[in-house]
Order: sequence, then structure tokens, then C-alpha cells
Amino acid sequence: MSALYGEDILRTDLLSDEALELILSTASRFEAVLEAGGRLSNMAGQMLATLFFEPSTRTRLSFEAAMQRLGGSVISVADPRTSSAAKGESLADTARTVAGYADLIVIRHPREGSAREAAEAVEVPVINAGDGAGQHPTQALLDIYTIQKEKGTLEGLTVTLAGDLRYGRTVHSLSHLLVRLGMRLFLVAPPGLEMPKSIMGDMREEGVEITETTDLAAAMRESDVVYMTRIQKERFEDPAEYEQLKGAYVIDRALVEQAKSGISIMHPLPRVDEIVPEVDVYEGAAYFRQAANGVSIRMALLALVVGRE
Amino acid sequence: MSALYGEDILRTDLLSDEALELILSTASRFEAVLEAGGRLSNMAGQMLATLFFEPSTRTRLSFEAAMQRLGGSVISVADPRTSSAAKGESLADTARTVAGYADLIVIRHPREGSAREAAEAVEVPVINAGDGAGQHPTQALLDIYTIQKEKGTLEGLTVTLAGDLRYGRTVHSLSHLLVRLGMRLFLVAPPGLEMPKSIMGDMREEGVEITETTDLAAAMRESDVVYMTRIQKERFEDPAEYEQLKGAYVIDRALVEQAKSGISIMHPLPRVDEIVPEVDVYEGAAYFRQAANGVSIRMALLALVVGRE
Amino acid sequence: MSALYGEDILRTDLLSDEALELILSTASRFEAVLEAGGRLSNMAGQMLATLFFEPSTRTRLSFEAAMQRLGGSVISVADPRTSSAAKGESLADTARTVAGYADLIVIRHPREGSAREAAEAVEVPVINAGDGAGQHPTQALLDIYTIQKEKGTLEGLTVTLAGDLRYGRTVHSLSHLLVRLGMRLFLVAPPGLEMPKSIMGDMREEGVEITETTDLAAAMRESDVVYMTRIQKERFEDPAEYEQLKGAYVIDRALVEQAKSGISIMHPLPRVDEIVPEVDVYEGAAYFRQAANGVSIRMALLALVVGRE
Repeated sequence: MSALYGEDILRTDLLSDEALELILSTASRFEAVLEAGGRLSNMAGQMLATLFFEPSTRTRLSFEAAMQRLGGSVISVADPRTSSAAKGESLADTARTVAGYADLIVIRHPREGSAREAAEAVEVPVINAGDGAGQHPTQALLDIYTIQKEKGTLEGLTVTLAGDLRYGRTVHSLSHLLVRLGMRLFLVAPPGLEMPKSIMGDMREEGVEITETTDLAAAMRESDVVYMTRIQKERFEDPAEYEQLKGAYVIDRALVEQAKSGISIMHPLPRVDEIVPEVDVYEGAAYFRQAANGVSIRMALLALVVGRE
Repeated sequence: MSALYGEDILRTDLLSDEALELILSTASRFEAVLEAGGRLSNMAGQMLATLFFEPSTRTRLSFEAAMQRLGGSVISVADPRTSSAAKGESLADTARTVAGYADLIVIRHPREGSAREAAEAVEVPVINAGDGAGQHPTQALLDIYTIQKEKGTLEGLTVTLAGDLRYGRTVHSLSHLLVRLGMRLFLVAPPGLEMPKSIMGDMREEGVEITETTDLAAAMRESDVVYMTRIQKERFEDPAEYEQLKGAYVIDRALVEQAKSGISIMHPLPRVDEIVPEVDVYEGAAYFRQAANGVSIRMALLALVVGRE
Repeated sequence: MSALYGEDILRTDLLSDEALELILSTASRFEAVLEAGGRLSNMAGQMLATLFFEPSTRTRLSFEAAMQRLGGSVISVADPRTSSAAKGESLADTARTVAGYADLIVIRHPREGSAREAAEAVEVPVINAGDGAGQHPTQALLDIYTIQKEKGTLEGLTVTLAGDLRYGRTVHSLSHLLVRLGMRLFLVAPPGLEMPKSIMGDMREEGVEITETTDLAAAMRESDVVYMTRIQKERFEDPAEYEQLKGAYVIDRALVEQAKSGISIMHPLPRVDEIVPEVDVYEGAAYFRQAANGVSIRMALLALVVGRE
């Protein structure tokens, strides 16, 4: 059995280099089978429960697509208001109950640490699909997978992370992986939304070059990849503050034309205004391919944690 | 590959006679296999995404039943509040993302033109499951299929369309098909809910006999089929106006007994008060058979647009 | 075909002894196959519709898991707000429509008698998954199944039912079965939440010993099983009354240590405060195993009513 058999996937910083490599190569292998018109049945007879206590289209749907592409079955709570949480049940109890129905659990919950809480309550593997301002490891993994596919390598790259670096759980999970892979980083955030100091400290220890700047154009001139994030309205208590910050950084055609040639543009989606639709036609606009890569990465994770890769 | 391979199904008026015939015959063939206790696997390995931005039981469930009856898999957004639309994502972006997970998309959305918008954004086939006051082509097709099954033919028939002919997207899609098939029409609507002039104009060009009247009983005396529709509360800004109009036309036993012998009674459902429950026992009461026919027609459409018929 | 072929499952008191025995043995047989790593395909080609007009995690998910564990397919309404009920459709009409898509229907609805109403409207089997303050027969059956598995027998047992015995539909369905099986009962309820007199009368006729008391500790000293229920907030119009009653009976470590040795602790879940988490580690704490047994019992019921056991 592989290094991930029986494991939970809660954070990216706990993944060994071996595990990371295994996830990427398994995703690639599954994807090749499907692209050649083949079918997979690795998860036949297995049941996935997806528990989403926060709105999500892409994460839930891509997990459910991944499970079914592997021949497995899915039971799903898409809306917390239709669940027992509305009756005052604890997350641990919900998880223990669902573990009696399913062979593995994917959970999204607004509270940081919630996925760990669920994982500690049950014996089946738990995959964190986003825990508030915490981590979103499967997003980070599909981002790495996308960089590898778009650039053909993970070595010697410079990446700009832009937008909300403070509350964006995606960039927290991702940034750990990028520095571990030795990538040079530009961090571009509006005032008040900078990368948290604790994460900065961890990353500096890896010894890679990290530049904080407010000049997105300059960062893009030196980057192989720009990773844009949405300023998340739901993280602000004051709507006026949101309105002011959301327009701070916008990728448009002019910015792309000044950027390093062949730059890949990524975004975890959904985007609102931070990448102008005119950019979509650009060959390096990778965000929809990135979303599609989520199915491959999630197929790999699902199969690996139950030993069906 | 058939005439519909790779096509979107957005409106009925764009379907060729050949395509219409193909859809009806494919539905009939699939239905015969299932009724004989057989099983189908035409869609094995295929993934359908159903995106419902408006409440629906029958349309969503019948598409999902159809896909699974053909051996395919389904991912589903049943409630817009659990989706990324709540985060301000455009419909085109949602469609592009989901197209990375699925082989075809079925969409219902309150905005007219939304299905076309989604279809233009993606390469996978898109089927319109209702776009506001626009069209609802799969309903119109299952209606035609029902008429054919109930009457044994589509030739030489007289059909009464009654109720809300102004806002009812069902009758807009359907009426185009009926006149094209050469059917004689009675249109019975309360004042203010008449068939829009633009649609009347298009239909008159086909040269069939169309009679607008407010006398439902008279129309039913000459009709092989009466197609009743609900006055849709959600289309009215003023509740008082709704209350006044909803009782305008009601099919009860007395009306059926005065009608042409053997008349088939259809309704897209849900009904509220416009067909009295006592009518359900009448042999010509076809509305629940009509709903069930939706699975056959949708199996045909799903299989045809991906070339698996 | 078995005694349950083509039958609805609406209440437990209508089940014959033969039917009860068949359900338990079928559940046990299915469970053994899955635990041995085998797979089942009894429901291949069959379609289950789950219609949930009230919040539920465990009942809906366990039915959907059960159907898929048997190789069948599922279409689902998890939220009444996304259904045609929002457009004023009657339950009978919804059921008739869905019966055109599916081979059997599972329904939960807040109105007592609703499952029977649906069953009378359609020809396919209907399973009641809870009808308001009425019955919840599949819960009662999984409870009996759990007692049999936990104690190794259904004979000569003493059971305490505690908590809300007035509004708790679970204990209404269950208590009928327990007395029929000859079990001795303790009924422990706070004032105002006692078992309804009509049910008491029915049970007394069976001739078993039933003791009503407010002393939970004393009852547990003589019981093989204690079945705790939640005081359901949603059954009270006055929040203050709920707050006062909910703490009336709480199982904690002290209470378990004073109880009969080896006592099994059951709960239909979700629990709020009525069983303290410290009790979870106790070997006799059976409530999560009980929930998991729901899949086995529901597999049995699904297969039996369509003749696929």
C-alpha cells in the first residue's frame, strides 16, 4: 500500500515529498487513461460522502465527478440547512454517523480546524475541502499539478501570488508547497490583505527568495506564473472596505502584454472582476484548465487514501 | 453520427424535421427496451452536470433518472444558494468550469437567453431546461411525444392550448412545433395572458388554422387534445392580479363530459387548481403519463447530443 | 416473491411477525456479504427516489447509501424549497409524477399521514422515512436490528425508553415492536412529555410489563438496553419550555456506572446534550453502530419491496 493509504488529507505542509510526487503521478496516470477514452473502476464498491457546510460548486462537483469517474458512488450533503447540524448536532457526531455509511469523507466547513476535528472522530479517511480561513489542500495540489502541466516542469520557476493573501486559504496551502519546491515568489497584496507574518516566517526558513511588493506589473514581468485570487466579500464585516479593496488589482490585456512572455495566468475561481474576460482568449489563461485538473487530482487522492490507486 | 451529435438543444424552432423525427423514434426505442425489462448502457462512462438556478422537481429528476437509466453518472446543483453564483460568478464562468467536469450540461435559469449564454461559453453540448420566460424545449418535445403516444399519430389533430399563454414558456416552445406539424389550434387565455403577438405572427406564417377564443368549452368540443397550463404566481408582481386570474379556466368533470369524445388532457405540471382532481380518473387524463414520458425523451436527447444513441 | 413484495412500509404495527423476521434476516445476510468484502447488485437497473420535505442527514444518506450498495441508482429531493411543492403542488401529485421516474419512493414529510397519502396515490412501493409526529418505521426496524446484534437475542430483554416519549415518533414506532417481541419496558419521561395514552392502551393489551417512572437511574439498573431520545426543539412553540425540559434527563458516566452491567446505550441521533460525550468510549455505547445498521436494514427493505432480495 502507498504512503497515503489510510491517511487524512488535512493540510499540504504535512505531505512528504514522496506523497506529493505520488499524488501528481497518480493524477497524471488516471487522466491519461480517461483522455484515451478508457474507463476506470478503482473505486467500484466504494462510497464517498461529501459534507459541504458552505456554498461550493467546483469543489463539491469535482470531487463527485472524480469519485464517479473511478466507478465509485457518492452520498452528499450540499446544504447545511438540510442536515442534522440544524438540529444542534456536533460536527464530530455528524462525522461518526456518516462514517457508518461511507468509506471516506470529504468535508468543507466554515470553521478553521473543523476538518481535523472530523478526522479525529472517525476511522475512515477524511479529506479537507476547505476549513474557513484555514487550509484547502486539494486546491493547492491541483494548482501544483496545473503549474507542472502548463510549464512542463516544477523546477526553476518564479510565481506571483496576487490579491487577498491574508484570508485566502488557497494561497496559504499553496505557498507552503511552492517554497518547498524551491520556487521564487512575488507576493502582491493591497494594504491590510498581506500574507500573515506566521506564514511568511515559515516560508523564509526554506531559504527561497520571496519579494513582497504592491507593483503587480513589475512582478508579472519576472514571473512564469501569476496566481490571482478573489478578494472574498464574505470575509469582510464592513462592505465599504470590501468595495474599496476589490478593485486594487485587476489583470487586463495591457497587463498581460507587459508581462513575461508565455506567462501562465491562474485563479482558483470563482473570479469576480479581478481578471477581465478579454484575457480569457490568451493562450496562457489557464484558470479553466486548472479547474478541470481538479478532477484528476481528486481522483488520485480518493484512490490513494483507500488504497485503490 | 446523427444530426444532433455535438449540438445544443436550446429552442424547438431550430430543430429540423429530421432531428425531431430522430428524437421521437430514439425515445420510443429506449422506452421499449426498458419496458421489456432490458437495460441500457449507452451513457456508460459519461458524466452529466445538471445546473438548476430555479426550483424544479420534475425536470431535474427526470433528466437525472434518464442519465442513470442509460448507465451514465450525474453531478448536480439543485439550489443556486449552494453554488458559486452566490459569490458573484458569471454564468459563463460557471458553465466553463463545469464543462471541465462533465460531458454535457443541462441548465435551468430564470433569465431568458441564459442557456444560449452558457452554450456559447463551452464546447460540450448544453440542453436548455427552461430559461425564464424563454423556451423549455425538452418539455415541448415530451409533449409532442405524448400526443403521438396518446393519439397514435401526429397528423390531422386539433389542439387547444389554455391558460397562461403569455408567460408560459412551455406553450411558446410547444406552439411552434404544433403548427409546424400542421395541427389546428385553439388558443384560450384570460385577458392579459394571451399568446404574444410575435409568436402569433410566426405561427400564422405556417398557414395553419389558429383560433383565439375565451370559450374553453367550445374549444374542447372540437379538440383531440387540450393542453392546460398553470397561471404562474411567480410571474406576477401584484398578488391580487394573480388571485383574480387563476380561477379563470378550470377543467372539471362537466367540462370533460361536454368535450370531444376521447379528448386527451395534458398539463406540464405542477397543477394547482386548474384541473380538478376528479378528472384524474378519466382515461384521457394524460398528464402523469406525460410527465413519465419526460424520461424517455430526455434519454433520447442526452444520448443523441453525445453520439451514443 | 416474499411477503413484502409490492408492499408499502408505512408503520411498524402493520408488519407481520414473518415480515419482521424476513427484514432482520435479509439485513443480516446483506451485511455479511459486504463485510466479507463482497459486492451486491440486487438493485441493478432500479431507481430510488428520495423525497425529503424536512431536514435529515442520516435517514436520507443511509437510504441513498443502501440503494447504491445494492447497485441501484438514486434521484433525490433534499430540500423542499427546490421542489415543486414551492409552486403549490399537492403531495399526491408530486408522488404520482415521481412514480413515473422511479421504481420506489422514500418520503419524509412534516405532516402526519403524508406517507400514506403518497402511497395511496401511486402504484410503486412507498417507504415512510418519518411523517411528522406519526411514525418512522425504518428507524424502529434498525433499532430492533441493533438490539439483536448488541444483545445476541431479542428474547427476555428489559428496555428503558427515555426522554421525549410524547412527540418522539421514533419511540412510537419502536415501542409497538418491543412489546410485541415480549420485552419488559420502563418509560421515563419528564412531565408533559409522557407516552400518549392511546399508545399506552395498545401496549397494555399485549400483556407485557410496562412501568412508567421519572427515575432514570432506577430504570437503568434493571435494563439491558436504555434508549435515549432528544427533546426536539422544533416540537415546542415556547422556547422557554424547551430550555427547561431539555436538561431533565442526561446520561453521564455516573449514571452508566450505576446501571445494569453491560447495558447497551442507544439513541436515534442526533443527540444534543442528553448523552454526555464521555459516555462514547463505553463499550455499550451503541448509538453510532446503531446509525450504521440503518444501511443494512434499508438495503433489506428496498430489496424486499421490489422483490430483489
